[in-house]
Amino acid sequence: MSRVVRTEPLTAQAFALFGDVIEAAGAPARMINRGNCGRFDDLARLDFAGEGRPGISVFKAKPYALPLTLEMVERHPLGSQAFLPLSAEPFLVVVAPDEGAKPGRPRAFLTAPGQGVNYHRGTWHGVLTPLSGPGLFAVVDRLGDGDNLEEHWFETPYIVE
Amino acid sequence: MSRVVRTEPLTAQAFALFGDVIEAAGAPARMINRGNCGRFDDLARLDFAGEGRPGISVFKAKPYALPLTLEMVERHPLGSQAFLPLSAEPFLVVVAPDEGAKPGRPRAFLTAPGQGVNYHRGTWHGVLTPLSGPGLFAVVDRLGDGDNLEEHWFETPYIVE
Repeated sequence: MSRVVRTEPLTAQAFALFGDVIEAAGAPARMINRGNCGRFDDLARLDFAGEGRPGISVFKAKPYALPLTLEMVERHPLGSQAFLPLSAEPFLVVVAPDEGAKPGRPRAFLTAPGQGVNYHRGTWHGVLTPLSGPGLFAVVDRLGDGDNLEEHWFETPYIVE
Repeated sequence: MSRVVRTEPLTAQAFALFGDVIEAAGAPARMINRGNCGRFDDLARLDFAGEGRPGISVFKAKPYALPLTLEMVERHPLGSQAFLPLSAEPFLVVVAPDEGAKPGRPRAFLTAPGQGVNYHRGTWHGVLTPLSGPGLFAVVDRLGDGDNLEEHWFETPYIVE
């Protein structure tokens, strides 16, 4: 099977197997501030196991370029992880289904401005890959002890383009 | 006393009485992804009382212009509230100290690109005030029942400029 993975636009439907798209889509749950602000409620399944607690951190990542050689994906067995871009620049979201405790064929999504993602607990995903500066993201994930990182290195890398 | 409030730059030190500045400041707690990403950990005091739970929502707010007439501030007795801009556009952060269960003189902070804020539980603050489009923010706050909104209307409005 081809090792080339082509990017596709990020939509809630296409991403549902892997996590949540965090965006202002459709009609807001309610208007607040005397009609000046729409509130789109409860967009991410936060899921933290064990002794951990949710926290907000900031990640600053170097930008990557396409085509990208995908050698590794990882997952966090103890918690969901949300990435909220602090800029309007699109970024790349690589995920893979689980197939018997190993990642299957990856998929690659390209975000639109205003979209963040929340990986469900245990979802295989690539490292944070902005495609331009500033590469700043607020991250809502699990803080605490425990073995919360599992990596899988592909025998043959994929090429995302 | 003058009803004019002048904006000041948002810094962690100046904002400490009111909440947390969520930003990549100083050295990262650690580098991840083989040195390609700096992680600035645990930047917000998340504080949710009662039966509530934390959630991630998106707010879409109309932009405001300076000078701004500040008629009202509000606070949330049951939970902290973090605003993470999904763009690099600066926004206005209005807060006020509590003085005997009423807000004292407000202060107004102007964010820099890459800065979010977390209002500590019970902090008086203005409504979400982007100063330009797109006005999109990810919000980490308390979801759940309970009386979590208190408003205070000033007898004489302030002018933020």
